[in-house]
Amino acid sequence: MQNFTLHTPTKVVFGAGQIAELANQIPADARVLITYGGGSVKKNGVMDQVHQALKNHQFEEFGGIEPNPSYETLMKAVEMIRASHFDFLLAVGGGSVLDGTKFIAAAVNYPEDPWQILETTGSKITQAIPMGSVLTLPATGSETNNGAVVSRRSTGDKRHFFSPFVQPLFAILDPVVTYTLPQRQVANGVVDAFVHTIEQYLTYPVNAKVQDRFAEGLLLTLIEEGPKALENPEDYDVRANIMWSATMALNGLIGAGVPQDWATHMLGHELTALHGLDHAQTLAIVLPSLLEAKKEQKRAKLLQYAERVWNLHAGSEDQRIDAAIAATRDFFERMGVPTHLSDYGLDGSTIPSLINKLDEHGYHHLGEHGDITLEESKRIYEAAI
Amino acid sequence: MQNFTLHTPTKVVFGAGQIAELANQIPADARVLITYGGGSVKKNGVMDQVHQALKNHQFEEFGGIEPNPSYETLMKAVEMIRASHFDFLLAVGGGSVLDGTKFIAAAVNYPEDPWQILETTGSKITQAIPMGSVLTLPATGSETNNGAVVSRRSTGDKRHFFSPFVQPLFAILDPVVTYTLPQRQVANGVVDAFVHTIEQYLTYPVNAKVQDRFAEGLLLTLIEEGPKALENPEDYDVRANIMWSATMALNGLIGAGVPQDWATHMLGHELTALHGLDHAQTLAIVLPSLLEAKKEQKRAKLLQYAERVWNLHAGSEDQRIDAAIAATRDFFERMGVPTHLSDYGLDGSTIPSLINKLDEHGYHHLGEHGDITLEESKRIYEAAI
Repeated sequence: MQNFTLHTPTKVVFGAGQIAELANQIPADARVLITYGGGSVKKNGVMDQVHQALKNHQFEEFGGIEPNPSYETLMKAVEMIRASHFDFLLAVGGGSVLDGTKFIAAAVNYPEDPWQILETTGSKITQAIPMGSVLTLPATGSETNNGAVVSRRSTGDKRHFFSPFVQPLFAILDPVVTYTLPQRQVANGVVDAFVHTIEQYLTYPVNAKVQDRFAEGLLLTLIEEGPKALENPEDYDVRANIMWSATMALNGLIGAGVPQDWATHMLGHELTALHGLDHAQTLAIVLPSLLEAKKEQKRAKLLQYAERVWNLHAGSEDQRIDAAIAATRDFFERMGVPTHLSDYGLDGSTIPSLINKLDEHGYHHLGEHGDITLEESKRIYEAAI
Repeated sequence: MQNFTLHTPTKVVFGAGQIAELANQIPADARVLITYGGGSVKKNGVMDQVHQALKNHQFEEFGGIEPNPSYETLMKAVEMIRASHFDFLLAVGGGSVLDGTKFIAAAVNYPEDPWQILETTGSKITQAIPMGSVLTLPATGSETNNGAVVSRRSTGDKRHFFSPFVQPLFAILDPVVTYTLPQRQVANGVVDAFVHTIEQYLTYPVNAKVQDRFAEGLLLTLIEEGPKALENPEDYDVRANIMWSATMALNGLIGAGVPQDWATHMLGHELTALHGLDHAQTLAIVLPSLLEAKKEQKRAKLLQYAERVWNLHAGSEDQRIDAAIAATRDFFERMGVPTHLSDYGLDGSTIPSLINKLDEHGYHHLGEHGDITLEESKRIYEAAI
């Protein structure tokens, strides 16, 4: 096991009806800015519950944060807050609203050009406005971690940053609010949480038994519950298990003391930035090809994954590994998330632009061994056509 | 899944050499009181490492906190702090030092008789001195939770309390410092962590798949690594896996959203209070008899436990359950912790006194269904002779 520091201070308030708890989580005298996305929370009753809970608080709203939140939109919220003071930010939405709100929280009093936050991956942040969330889409894990991803439309960039100052104080997770999600978002969320887990698990063994078994527990749960959520959207326990898996997949716990990969995310980010694909779609495209390409480096963990997650015991090592990668691809397809570039109308002609962007962003040595070069990234994209 | 609130704010700093990190975790201007137990930390070099890390801090020491820390001893530390101001308490030791230090932290400025803290299970605490720890014995999980158990020798009482004010700010976990532990303490620690996990797992199903699999992951790890720690005390990964399992077993994570039992602990506490048995010894005595007694109520989870933890698939339901209980008992015995009262020189004559103490403490309805009455507790003790 590798050395680690793990700090998970976000308080989780989980379960049906828990939005009412907001009143006790935000200081009574705080002036609150509620941030949200495209407006579904106004139609499905979530925002009404938030207003009811905050009936004795002072609050205003800022809506319109897009999927893959844009720097341009977020800067409008920053200007609004600079013009009219707020003490607390409440993100009501999914990972994009969460991530966007983290950026807003850090940018308002940032002393230089806020784009620098993303250029320095958050290392120069020294303060942020306190924030919490009501999560509506289980997927990114952003509700209990201190990372965020922001895109700049004008330049085709998608960059991330981390800072302890943007760790949310609380996350309210009510599985009931996920009943009305479109199937595409449910599927994307399950794939996203699954790949987060894989990125922290499918590397090489360091004898970290607890972390491995926790990761396997999340993968098994997502495999079992994901398809059920598509079939029966109002099964509370299914929704609760998915929601809790997605949060646990990226709060730091399963990644503590183990090597991590994240190359699938980096290759995927360029696809979203250039072609607007959903984040999870890009992961479903890249991961199977990446596992195929890194079969030798990941052999020991691929065998463990085949056995413990997919219950594959028969055949040669290579057969079990191939079957596990095929099962992974099949799982994404069963969730309704296609796994080839061609499924999204893309062909190999986009690959040079993707590689240029990886080059520009300095991603020359990705993966847990730093051995995914631009040349190898090109082969992974090509295998995914 | 049941509704829950989970708050795990203690920062974990894990790994070889991490005691040096103390300097960054305690405010530079804090006057620190280091608390410790019987003095082994002075012989094995741990206290030297602590002093080295705090060479630019002001500190004093308070030693002599016993296993099953006594109210009488802890009140001496309280008097010392009242007489000479301290801003920070650093517990260097195992669960008893941690628990004792939590009590000291809450008692110093408690406005009434500090024994009231234990009579009201901490509900009236409104402040405490901030604290952190260097853990030397993986077992109780006290390093990342807000509970503590304190004994009063003069009355034969062993009581617990909880308060968010005594949640440690940080826990430094260096597996290397556990190499020199006596085998009995290693074994006790593994049994203690195992039973903590069981108390939150072996109840009835609520379809909490993540929590179940996390609990099973801890049980499997302790079963695999426990005996290895006795055979080869200086295997770093074995020690690291045990240490991390023990912390994860009682930080709130696996118990969030599921029913909990804790009857084994309550029946065990009376054995420690009256006869001075090690905490883990009492758990090893009580648990197998309790599982036997509550076989019907726990049937579904016992079957899951038999299959997933002990890999028992053959035979009738009752055969699998019996085999799982026998395997549990055998595991404790292999760890060198006997499982019968008679192994500790006790016979049935002590049972009336134990029942009287349960009665006095109001434990008339223990277990996840509240159906372990005094009569049933008596049968459980009798079956354990």
